[in-house]
Amino acid sequence: MKRHAGGDVREFEFVSHLVERLAPAREDTHLAIGDDAAIISIGVRRLAITTDTLIEGRHFLENTAAFDIGYKSLAVNCSDLAAMAATPAWATVALTTPSIEPDWVDDFIDGARAATQGAEVDLIGGDTTRGTLSVTVTAIGTLDAEPATRRSAARAGDVIAVTGTLGDAGAGLSYLQGQKRASDADAQFLVGRLNRPSWRDGAALAGLARAAVDISDGLLADLGHVLEASGRGARLDIDALPVSAALRRSMGDDVKALRQVQLTGGDDYELCLTLPPEALDEARSRLECALTPVGEILAGPGLRLTDARGAEVDPVVFGAGGWDHFGRDACSAT
Amino acid sequence: MKRHAGGDVREFEFVSHLVERLAPAREDTHLAIGDDAAIISIGVRRLAITTDTLIEGRHFLENTAAFDIGYKSLAVNCSDLAAMAATPAWATVALTTPSIEPDWVDDFIDGARAATQGAEVDLIGGDTTRGTLSVTVTAIGTLDAEPATRRSAARAGDVIAVTGTLGDAGAGLSYLQGQKRASDADAQFLVGRLNRPSWRDGAALAGLARAAVDISDGLLADLGHVLEASGRGARLDIDALPVSAALRRSMGDDVKALRQVQLTGGDDYELCLTLPPEALDEARSRLECALTPVGEILAGPGLRLTDARGAEVDPVVFGAGGWDHFGRDACSAT
Repeated sequence: MKRHAGGDVREFEFVSHLVERLAPAREDTHLAIGDDAAIISIGVRRLAITTDTLIEGRHFLENTAAFDIGYKSLAVNCSDLAAMAATPAWATVALTTPSIEPDWVDDFIDGARAATQGAEVDLIGGDTTRGTLSVTVTAIGTLDAEPATRRSAARAGDVIAVTGTLGDAGAGLSYLQGQKRASDADAQFLVGRLNRPSWRDGAALAGLARAAVDISDGLLADLGHVLEASGRGARLDIDALPVSAALRRSMGDDVKALRQVQLTGGDDYELCLTLPPEALDEARSRLECALTPVGEILAGPGLRLTDARGAEVDPVVFGAGGWDHFGRDACSAT
Repeated sequence: MKRHAGGDVREFEFVSHLVERLAPAREDTHLAIGDDAAIISIGVRRLAITTDTLIEGRHFLENTAAFDIGYKSLAVNCSDLAAMAATPAWATVALTTPSIEPDWVDDFIDGARAATQGAEVDLIGGDTTRGTLSVTVTAIGTLDAEPATRRSAARAGDVIAVTGTLGDAGAGLSYLQGQKRASDADAQFLVGRLNRPSWRDGAALAGLARAAVDISDGLLADLGHVLEASGRGARLDIDALPVSAALRRSMGDDVKALRQVQLTGGDDYELCLTLPPEALDEARSRLECALTPVGEILAGPGLRLTDARGAEVDPVVFGAGGWDHFGRDACSAT
C-alpha cells in the first residue's frame, strides 16, 4: 500500500488492504468487502448488503433540496445492490444534520421513497445526529437462486453493455458549477440525472449477465474494477457510448468533451455489465431501459479504446483517471 | 410534533413521527423504526438490524484513539442488538475522516475487532469518505426461535434488572473533561468504561427477559422508553443501583452525585431488562456479568424512585432528563 500526496492512499490499494485484513470468518459470509455489495446466506436464502455515505459539498452540492438528498442516498445504494443482481428490500438511514428540522426530514423521506418507487423497500432503521450534513444508507437486498453478478466474473468474449445513457450527471454538475451552458429544459434533465439518478433493475439480469458494476466513478474507472477483478482486458468503442439528446445538444460540436464526460464523469449510476453475446437480446427484453453494447472483454490485460472506424484512441486524450466526485478523493469498499 | 428552541424537536416526538411515517409495507418486516433494532424475516429465520452514528466531539472526545473509536462504534451497535436478544453476526462500517491514514484505519479495525471478541462478527462492507470524523455502523444479528426482547413487552409485576454497574462512563467523561478527580487506576477504569463499553450477552436471555433496552442515554431515560412503549409505570430503588468500586471511591461521600450519574449518565451500554421474578435466578446463571434487581414494573403510569428504606425520592433532585451525550441533543430511531 503506497502513500500518496497528503498521506492518503488511493482507493484501489486501500481497498485491497482492507480486503486482506477483513477476510471473513463466518461460513455464512459468502462475500465480504471488495465488490458492490457483500453477500451473506440466511438458511437457504441469500442477502446482498451495501453501505454508502453522501456528504454535503462532496456528493451533493450545498443547498441541494432535502428531497433530492433523500432520493440520491437511496438510489446509489439500490444501484449497488442492482450491480449484484439483488432486489432492494430494506434500508437504514443514518442522518447527520446541523439541526433536526421536521419539514426537512419529511422532504428527505419523500425523496427516499420516490427513489424506491416500484420496488418494495422498507426504511427499517435510522439514527439522527447533529453535525455536518451527511447521510449514510445501508441497503439490504434479496438474491434469487441465480449467481450474483460479481466484478470478478467477466470472461473473454463477453459483450460489455451499459444501461441508459452516459455522461448526463457529469454534465449536470458542470452546469450547476457554472462551467457549462444548456437550455433550460436540457439543464433540468441533466441536473435531474445528477440529483435523482435512476438505479436499474439488475436483478432482472440474474443468470444472464456475468459481471456487473454500477457507474459511480465513471465508466473507465468502474470498468477498470471489473477488468482488475476478472484478470481480463477490454476493448471499448467510444463512439458506441449511448448519449442522451440533452447531453448531445448541450455539448454541441465538442465531441472530445462529450466522450470525456461519458468516459470519466461519475454519478450516472447506470450499470456496466458483461454477458455472452448470445444473451444480449434476452437481457434487453428484460430491462425497461436501453442496453447498449459498447465493447468486448479480451483475454489479455489492458483497456483499449477504439472509435467507430476501429482506430485506436489514446485514453490520455480524456485525462482518464476516474471521477473525483466534487474534486476530492474517495474510497469505497462496497 | 412540537417544536422546541432552535427549531428542533425532541427525540421522542421525532421518533413517534418517524414511526408513523415509516410504517413498513413488506410482510417480512416484523418491526421497523422505534425499538433498539428492526426485525426482518428471511424464510424461517429472523434478523435484527440496527444503525448508530458516532461523531467526534459528540459521541467521543477529540483526540480519542482510533482503536477506541473502532471499539465503541461496534460495541454500541452490538449493544442495540443485545437489547433485542439478538446475536451480532455482521457489520458494515462507513467511516468519514479528514484524511485516510492507513495506520489510523488499521488501529480502528483492531478496536472494532476487539469489541466483537468472543462473538463471530464479520465486517462485510464499508465506505470511506473525507470529511469531519464520524463513523456509522450498521450491525446485523441473528435471532433464535424465542421472541425478541421488545421495549413494549414489560408487564406489571416484572422485576427490573440491570447488568454490570451503572454510572462509570458518565464519571469517566467528567474526568476527561476535568470536572472530576480520581486516582490513576480508577480514572483508567472509568475512562475505559466510556471508551470501550462492554456490550452484554442479551441473546442469552432470549425467552427469559420480556422487555429490554440498552442504557445509552441514562437509566431514567432508557427505562422511560420501556415504560412508554409498554404503557406501564415502575418503582426504582435508587439504593440498589450497582456501583463499581472505582466509581464509589471517586465519588467519595457525595451520594447524591453518585446516584445522579447512575440515573442520568449515559454511555454505560448495560442492559436494563424486565423479567418475571421467578426467572431472575436463571437469567443470572446465563450471564457472565452481574444482574442486579433494581425495581419493579407497576400497572399504573409514572416512574417512582424510592430509597433503601422505601421512602419516595423526588426525581427532580437528579435533574432527571436523560443523557445529552456531550451537551447536545440526540435523536435515535433504532
